[in-house]
Amino acid sequence: MTELGRSTALLTDHYELTMLAAALADGTGDRPCVFETFARRLPNGRRYGVVGGTARVLDAIAAFRFGDDELRELADRKVVDKDTLDWLAGYRFTGDVDGYPEGELYFPGSPVLTVRGTFAEAVVLETLVLSILNHDSAIVSAAARMVSAANSRPIIEMGSRRTHEEAAVASARAAYLGGFATSSNLEAARRHGIPTTGTSAHAFTLLHDSERDAFAAQVAAQGRDTTLLVDTYDITKGIDTAIEVAGPELGAIRIDSGDVGVLARQAREQLDKLGANHTRIVVSGDLDEYAIAALRAEPVDAYGVGTSLVTGSGAPTAGMVYKLVEVAGRPVAKRSSHKESKGGRKLAIRRHKPTGTALEEVIYPAAGPEPEAAEHDRQLAMPLMRGGSVVEGLPSLEQARKRVRGGLVSLPWEGLKLSAGEPAITTVHVG
Amino acid sequence: MTELGRSTALLTDHYELTMLAAALADGTGDRPCVFETFARRLPNGRRYGVVGGTARVLDAIAAFRFGDDELRELADRKVVDKDTLDWLAGYRFTGDVDGYPEGELYFPGSPVLTVRGTFAEAVVLETLVLSILNHDSAIVSAAARMVSAANSRPIIEMGSRRTHEEAAVASARAAYLGGFATSSNLEAARRHGIPTTGTSAHAFTLLHDSERDAFAAQVAAQGRDTTLLVDTYDITKGIDTAIEVAGPELGAIRIDSGDVGVLARQAREQLDKLGANHTRIVVSGDLDEYAIAALRAEPVDAYGVGTSLVTGSGAPTAGMVYKLVEVAGRPVAKRSSHKESKGGRKLAIRRHKPTGTALEEVIYPAAGPEPEAAEHDRQLAMPLMRGGSVVEGLPSLEQARKRVRGGLVSLPWEGLKLSAGEPAITTVHVG
Repeated sequence: MTELGRSTALLTDHYELTMLAAALADGTGDRPCVFETFARRLPNGRRYGVVGGTARVLDAIAAFRFGDDELRELADRKVVDKDTLDWLAGYRFTGDVDGYPEGELYFPGSPVLTVRGTFAEAVVLETLVLSILNHDSAIVSAAARMVSAANSRPIIEMGSRRTHEEAAVASARAAYLGGFATSSNLEAARRHGIPTTGTSAHAFTLLHDSERDAFAAQVAAQGRDTTLLVDTYDITKGIDTAIEVAGPELGAIRIDSGDVGVLARQAREQLDKLGANHTRIVVSGDLDEYAIAALRAEPVDAYGVGTSLVTGSGAPTAGMVYKLVEVAGRPVAKRSSHKESKGGRKLAIRRHKPTGTALEEVIYPAAGPEPEAAEHDRQLAMPLMRGGSVVEGLPSLEQARKRVRGGLVSLPWEGLKLSAGEPAITTVHVG
Repeated sequence: MTELGRSTALLTDHYELTMLAAALADGTGDRPCVFETFARRLPNGRRYGVVGGTARVLDAIAAFRFGDDELRELADRKVVDKDTLDWLAGYRFTGDVDGYPEGELYFPGSPVLTVRGTFAEAVVLETLVLSILNHDSAIVSAAARMVSAANSRPIIEMGSRRTHEEAAVASARAAYLGGFATSSNLEAARRHGIPTTGTSAHAFTLLHDSERDAFAAQVAAQGRDTTLLVDTYDITKGIDTAIEVAGPELGAIRIDSGDVGVLARQAREQLDKLGANHTRIVVSGDLDEYAIAALRAEPVDAYGVGTSLVTGSGAPTAGMVYKLVEVAGRPVAKRSSHKESKGGRKLAIRRHKPTGTALEEVIYPAAGPEPEAAEHDRQLAMPLMRGGSVVEGLPSLEQARKRVRGGLVSLPWEGLKLSAGEPAITTVHVG
């Protein structure tokens, strides 16, 4: 029923079910509600965010069903009363979901995902929706920064080992969405069709009696187009041995440690002298977007990125919230502090210059009036679910990936700066 | 077969299988190997780390089997050759695993988990072992800091929405391991027996026509011992209404925004005036270990912690590595850079003063000689798997939780400081 073939119903906070029980008991559970998902701010001086995980959210909502196992768990632990259990047994989301398409840029306040339904059916989705959007958006946002720093050189995602084993699969997907070329994660290939690559680690060299034996075994198994890891002992000797073993047709060498910029330059010279002019140089080892940018002038053909990608490069969560903004057509909002947000369901258009450069995000009440839209302005939300069913023909992962690329191109140039700053475009609230 | 009822075999990096194929082809795959898991350093000036996830690792290794689905995936995508597929079809880990018990403190270089087996059977576990240990150790390490800052006041984990939906379940477990009292995550209760709690969010108040209606509905459904969230509109009025509705027997109020220290003090005064002397005060909202420590002098009865816990409070991964250290009894190690590590299988003892205060971590070659151990010294590793089977009678989660508590008590006082610093005890390599 979902990517893991099981119910997502208990990936939920306890208080959602206790609220549900109380609302079913006093009759307010049936009130039509609108919940809006948005980020109050971008993390850490980031200039844009990228929406990730939308497709996973829709899958997870479809799999949000309470089977015998889930109901028994809730009954045994007395989380909710019998009436609520009965209601949960028949649960199936029947409302509407609208949102920014996956891969779209977002800014503070952007109504990224809007869920409409009764309070009862919509409140229980809070944790699941946020978990997926907060994780995947954090990763794809970091990925996009790295891709733009890499300036069209390919990046290989290899961070699975530095994050939760299932977060690793979602991270590989998010990295690809953000423009990474491939991933190391085999489950991401099975589940999401992400291309994977991989050749060998230092362990393979250490296993053998000599580096030469290791290289020979690898070339025998994988062909000359493989990537040989040359920094186990001495890089200069490693490169000599690599070309002796594989010949100048060797696909690539990888350097995983040391000052990779200097080492890449030396390696390029050495490879060229050996006639291996087409042998590529892959660098890895604690790279982030800043390190990637610093390597722009170096003869690097591809980057391997791990830790910084899967940890969102300093921003491991997108910090989105899921807020009740409308009850029975009436706008509602918390009012006690700086956490205030505007009530009422909202829509957004993004204004652009005729050149296609984004100008501003205009957020307005869905109840109207709609702001005047010029030729290059774009309505941002699209229908994602209607009556509990996923809308047909939603963008594929490849299309979402193209959308990220298009979004980055549309940013004013300051928006692509890696340094901390303000959001690339301003958000204007009207109405 | 595992916590998710499915194979973990593809939660693996592509290169592990290509190395495997090459090693099977040249006969080196059968060489007996030792892989050691350790952290080269602690993150960000941390003074200790806590091992988390050991029990999940053992489960995941048991579920590391290649069924038809996994094999078809690898065959279709030509990840490995036919001989390797046949070998994988029969895969079952048959080696030995030793390691620090879950909940044990660790320091730079501590041999946290050691896997012994043929290269072929041990190399394929790298990603899975590291994903689990790196995630869970990062979370439990952050949890332990918060628990020690909270000075025996209970902490409720409520961070599921800020991390990947499955990482949320593991985080709830790790938080409990680290000493948190309860979690919001229902799946963590089902899967790991973690106690959960929860009452209501701002949405529940906003849903109703008035705060009074909302409180009345909640008290009707959950009883007077519930926790009423009083900061939706005006906290002072909210507290008045809460006590009017629930009476002075109200269990607790929760404040989720604003300057919670000041607000808690005012709330305590107000509650006491209203005769609600036993009504507890729960505070939440972007708390981390520093904020918790800053609230020590305030009349706070419990903390709710979300984002900072599930993101490891600035250190979202433990950064452990899984290194081949021994091949057929011969120590091996990478030698090209600062990433050097010592070859050979290692063991560790922790020396303590007679008072029980930890003094130093002594790491020595397993081949001997064993350093002299005084009365209060303790061998740190224990057998976890033998011949591919999990050892009987391993510590339970509750026992691991006690171990964390004991570990914190054993630290020299500087070790519990929250500020950035050196590891609490030094690591000494002998032999």
